[in-house]
Amino acid sequence: MPMNSVGFLNDFVDTPALLINEPVLQKNLKTMAAYCKNTGIALRPHTKTHKCPEIARRQLDLGAIGLVCAKLGEAEAMAEAGLGPLLVANQVIGPLKMKRLLKLNDQVDISVCVGRVEHVEELIRTAEGANTILSVFIELEVGMQRCGAAGPVAALDLAKKISDAPRLEFRGVMGYEGHAVGTKDLVARHHKAETAHHELALAVAMIRENGIEVPVVSAAGTGTFNLGVDRDELTEIQPGSYCLMDSDYHGYENVCDHFELACTVLATVIDQVDRRIVLDVGLKSIATDQGLPVTRWREDIIPFEIHEEHYCMEAGEDNPVPRVGDRLELLPSHICATANLYDEFHVFREQSLIARWPITGRGRYT
Amino acid sequence: MPMNSVGFLNDFVDTPALLINEPVLQKNLKTMAAYCKNTGIALRPHTKTHKCPEIARRQLDLGAIGLVCAKLGEAEAMAEAGLGPLLVANQVIGPLKMKRLLKLNDQVDISVCVGRVEHVEELIRTAEGANTILSVFIELEVGMQRCGAAGPVAALDLAKKISDAPRLEFRGVMGYEGHAVGTKDLVARHHKAETAHHELALAVAMIRENGIEVPVVSAAGTGTFNLGVDRDELTEIQPGSYCLMDSDYHGYENVCDHFELACTVLATVIDQVDRRIVLDVGLKSIATDQGLPVTRWREDIIPFEIHEEHYCMEAGEDNPVPRVGDRLELLPSHICATANLYDEFHVFREQSLIARWPITGRGRYT
Repeated sequence: MPMNSVGFLNDFVDTPALLINEPVLQKNLKTMAAYCKNTGIALRPHTKTHKCPEIARRQLDLGAIGLVCAKLGEAEAMAEAGLGPLLVANQVIGPLKMKRLLKLNDQVDISVCVGRVEHVEELIRTAEGANTILSVFIELEVGMQRCGAAGPVAALDLAKKISDAPRLEFRGVMGYEGHAVGTKDLVARHHKAETAHHELALAVAMIRENGIEVPVVSAAGTGTFNLGVDRDELTEIQPGSYCLMDSDYHGYENVCDHFELACTVLATVIDQVDRRIVLDVGLKSIATDQGLPVTRWREDIIPFEIHEEHYCMEAGEDNPVPRVGDRLELLPSHICATANLYDEFHVFREQSLIARWPITGRGRYT
Repeated sequence: MPMNSVGFLNDFVDTPALLINEPVLQKNLKTMAAYCKNTGIALRPHTKTHKCPEIARRQLDLGAIGLVCAKLGEAEAMAEAGLGPLLVANQVIGPLKMKRLLKLNDQVDISVCVGRVEHVEELIRTAEGANTILSVFIELEVGMQRCGAAGPVAALDLAKKISDAPRLEFRGVMGYEGHAVGTKDLVARHHKAETAHHELALAVAMIRENGIEVPVVSAAGTGTFNLGVDRDELTEIQPGSYCLMDSDYHGYENVCDHFELACTVLATVIDQVDRRIVLDVGLKSIATDQGLPVTRWREDIIPFEIHEEHYCMEAGEDNPVPRVGDRLELLPSHICATANLYDEFHVFREQSLIARWPITGRGRYT
């Protein structure tokens, strides 16, 4: 029971700290790259998980065809690092963002999503006003009840409008089956993913039947990266969490067979009474929206209560109680929301701290 | 029903953005300062809520005797801005933090908390090794079951040890009745606060009976700022959230009579189908640990689901449905955790954006 397998970091890394085990990260990146290469599907990883140019660069070096960003601000962070092509898998709206989009469009190959006529019209006005070409994906709503065109007919209408616009370039159609990705049961998840991809394929077919080329068809997250993606219509997948993983995802059948936990939060015991201990991490420094984090190697330590900067836990009977000053590794239950709380990753390999990677996309919500 | 009372910000502030209504903030600051002046209790506000030197400076300008910080990193942020005296209301542990504490101790009047003998011993070693004086508070556990000495006898033992150490200066005793602060019912909250302050007074009395001076006795948060603080033993209160407030606190009897909501998150509608709308804010940009945020002026808009960067809501029947591009103000349910997600406040007064205040303490968890 190695209570602190990263004890060599004690002299260099203060807590709480976000750690990356670099060989595990690299293994995850290679596993997904190899899967895509073997199955002939392109990989466009989502940067929303790590928001870190160094990890994005590794993904591109291993063959990814581009990056997906959740926000224009994240795309700016990647462009600042010289990375691309970029797809903002979101609706980009309003004059302030249009200015920033034009600036980015001069620097890097960037596409944005539309789901409604208003989105297309704003992009048309923007492209015409700037005398430039803007690249566009249609987002299709495939069952998540979030954003996107509601079905094939709505998608076709948007495709026509985009194709008719001299200053817009229609790049493809995207659907994100988040409702499937978040379904724990593998059979149900597989079924939902297949249904969503079928919806996507129907819309693409209708657009193509109307003489409009659809170069890219994009879908899937880490939970569905290999579920129902064997359709000819899908040209690429856009998983995010696979690189770092988290304890929630790692409980998922299919996912846990392929990827390992590469990222943990290092914490210090600051108080202890009987079997109860208090760690110097709280809901400001580790995400709790997917559940309370557990302790690596010490599953017997049960969460008691989490505060803003304190985590109160109780060590199981028959196990040693960690003492003040001891360090424990916590497994984030939601890595995307946890990494968003930090400015850097502390990266180690074997017994060495090899780098600190800035999370330059963090906090860039606009 | 003013759907967007901050529409004048449209040309300057992109969304999501954290807004401060400056006159409301200033009114909250003055209300608490006046309360403390009138009752003769000192005010040492907690910076964990705003982590923002500009707000801390205003608190000091209005008579606060110092600042409370949750972490050494927050104290560093305040010291960098030339602010103090500082009390880190937490146990500061380990050689890396000891180095930083010594550095801060050269720059500013700073105190840290201890709750166990190990904490005192590390501070003694540190102060002796550096040939300097370190200031110390004892934290007493007063019912929250978190950190601190367990009762008067344990506190007295620590006080003796601190007093006997030639290089430690004993500044006072602190108790935080978080379990009372978080109790919605006013009568129960008042009772818990009084009980906690009584525990604190007992410990202080025992220390004083043993001939040790206790200059400062500190307690209370925003929920208990005027509950049970009329004891002679309490010399100061340390509320945090009163400055900005949040919708959770504002639902509390007693609190809502004194303080108003000064801080909101501005969001844009990016998609809409029937009565359902999607905002460009999510759990990465607004805290959800105290419940889902509601929409200002539009209480009819009911939360449907929150994702990392999307907030799906449904407008009530008989009310207009916000359209793509419309902006809405959300009321954070937990302002401390929300402000921790942003790098700056956008500050407005009447119809003008008057400043952007950096949240320099954000992310400084160590």
